[in-house]
Amino acid sequence: MPGQPPPPAPYLSEEEVVRLIQSLAGKAEGELIVGIGDDAAVLASQARNLVVTTDLLVEGVHFDLGLISPYDLGGRAMAANLSDLAAMGAQPSWGFLSLGLPPRPQASFVEELVRGLVEFGRRYGLSLAGGDTVRAPQVLINLCLIGQADPVKPVLRSGGRAGDAVCVSGRLGRSAAGLAWLKGGGDPAAPEAAAAVEAHLRPRPRVAAGRALAESGRVHAMMDLSDGLATDLYRLCRASGLGARVQAQRLPLDGATRRLAAKLGADPLDWALRGGEDFELLFTCDPGDLELLSQLLAEAEPGLETARVGSLVREPGVRLEDGERVAEIGLSGYDHFREEA
Amino acid sequence: MPGQPPPPAPYLSEEEVVRLIQSLAGKAEGELIVGIGDDAAVLASQARNLVVTTDLLVEGVHFDLGLISPYDLGGRAMAANLSDLAAMGAQPSWGFLSLGLPPRPQASFVEELVRGLVEFGRRYGLSLAGGDTVRAPQVLINLCLIGQADPVKPVLRSGGRAGDAVCVSGRLGRSAAGLAWLKGGGDPAAPEAAAAVEAHLRPRPRVAAGRALAESGRVHAMMDLSDGLATDLYRLCRASGLGARVQAQRLPLDGATRRLAAKLGADPLDWALRGGEDFELLFTCDPGDLELLSQLLAEAEPGLETARVGSLVREPGVRLEDGERVAEIGLSGYDHFREEA
Repeated sequence: MPGQPPPPAPYLSEEEVVRLIQSLAGKAEGELIVGIGDDAAVLASQARNLVVTTDLLVEGVHFDLGLISPYDLGGRAMAANLSDLAAMGAQPSWGFLSLGLPPRPQASFVEELVRGLVEFGRRYGLSLAGGDTVRAPQVLINLCLIGQADPVKPVLRSGGRAGDAVCVSGRLGRSAAGLAWLKGGGDPAAPEAAAAVEAHLRPRPRVAAGRALAESGRVHAMMDLSDGLATDLYRLCRASGLGARVQAQRLPLDGATRRLAAKLGADPLDWALRGGEDFELLFTCDPGDLELLSQLLAEAEPGLETARVGSLVREPGVRLEDGERVAEIGLSGYDHFREEA
Repeated sequence: MPGQPPPPAPYLSEEEVVRLIQSLAGKAEGELIVGIGDDAAVLASQARNLVVTTDLLVEGVHFDLGLISPYDLGGRAMAANLSDLAAMGAQPSWGFLSLGLPPRPQASFVEELVRGLVEFGRRYGLSLAGGDTVRAPQVLINLCLIGQADPVKPVLRSGGRAGDAVCVSGRLGRSAAGLAWLKGGGDPAAPEAAAAVEAHLRPRPRVAAGRALAESGRVHAMMDLSDGLATDLYRLCRASGLGARVQAQRLPLDGATRRLAAKLGADPLDWALRGGEDFELLFTCDPGDLELLSQLLAEAEPGLETARVGSLVREPGVRLEDGERVAEIGLSGYDHFREEA
């Protein structure tokens, strides 16, 4: 067929990607002495404790570009890492982004992704301070975040005590419900799915809540819920040398999540236990401190509820009590290295 | 055919990979308060300046598992990042590894890779302090390293002055020579290629040299040579608002590299200018300080030579003078987003 081929979409060279990221990240200021553009960033932190976390997201494993916009993807990558800092009670400060992009990256894609990431981080006090950009067969996003905990002592997974109340912030299973809805081709704007889709695409890391809990000095062990309560509570128990009992009817599932499950023929309990990516806080404390800590959480993040879902016990293993039935649920979450389904 | 299938090779679950890395990294000690195994690591640094760098390596783009052992691959990933800290004059302290592995990772592969990485880092004073492990279609290695610069002020790319001598440590083009030899199917142990293969597989980041140069207070601008002198000097010049003249006959190519080039029909000058991954230091200083700085380098790393390859000039651009000919060589190095050849 005769005729002109369409002009190629604008794509970026490596230098242009770096300059774009640099312009979105903004100027180095405050304790960030040198930001993007040198061999390394230079920070002048006065904090007693620095808290550092890193997470790698791989296209096709952790996200599907057909189900999430580049802007939300950037925000989500940031949220997952901020959630780890939140679980230590740290204030997010600096981020380092390694970005893998297929050949001929589109300017609009890179700009939206990085803008989503930078703007999401900024809302929590974090500046993008450095990174690396490379060619890759698929989109790769690695974030390494540095937070500051001072004078707060970071709260570890290992501090749980037998008899502790096991608590979670917010609702469980909403992110999994939203993902299932999107995967089934559901309309992201459908009213019955809106809250779940929002929870999946734009999760809110509990940074203020985590700091409030750490500052209270009353929390014995804490971590964030990224792989599902079953697996994450198992990890907290192992680190603390204990076990746990969880009561199914105490799991904070909301009505919308239950209705979506009924519609999709899914088990909402399974979403709450194994869905993952709720990015809520899991923590343990003296049962007598539960009311105080619930109040602190609701003050730190208005509307945020606390649910006691069970107790730590001396006997190892994580058991779910559902009426008469008792089931071992530990470590049944997502194993990244299982064969693909 | 009847008969038993062979037993499957042992492969690791995600939890086993994490435990293996944890055991190779060793216990948290000193200023590392919490290491691998919690939501995040906790550091208690007293240094005035922290220097942070990150690098992402992708199988098939940055390395070929047919050409490098897992042990050397781990060391090389560490070397590339240590080189960035060296170029700032920082002391390496803590590393964070994000590791992407295809399904059913082999225990021996993971162990050798992480062992190579940990042992290489330890030689330079670095501890593995945290990370993330995920499933990926190919092997992915992201390292984020934190170094300490105190009381030394980090040396930036932007401090170059017109009239400065442009200097490099060590020899150029050896890594590219070694890679070309291996890609051509050459015997890694062949005597004529041994030094080049060693430079490619087991590069030595100039950590002690970088610290000595930074401590001297006499270096105006510094960076490491990772993408080739042509591209890296262009970056230094742009950051300093200057240009450079380089004399071809001053480039420190050794006889072995020239002989390999002749044998492979390659241009050794091209290896020196565009080969990349030499991980030597590129720095600028007053010409009058050249002798003193050469001595400092040779004391910091016995046998390490310094070559003045040209000068910084006010006129922008990086020009190579080769006898009568003058060529613009800036930014002709590796663009990670070019189409695959």
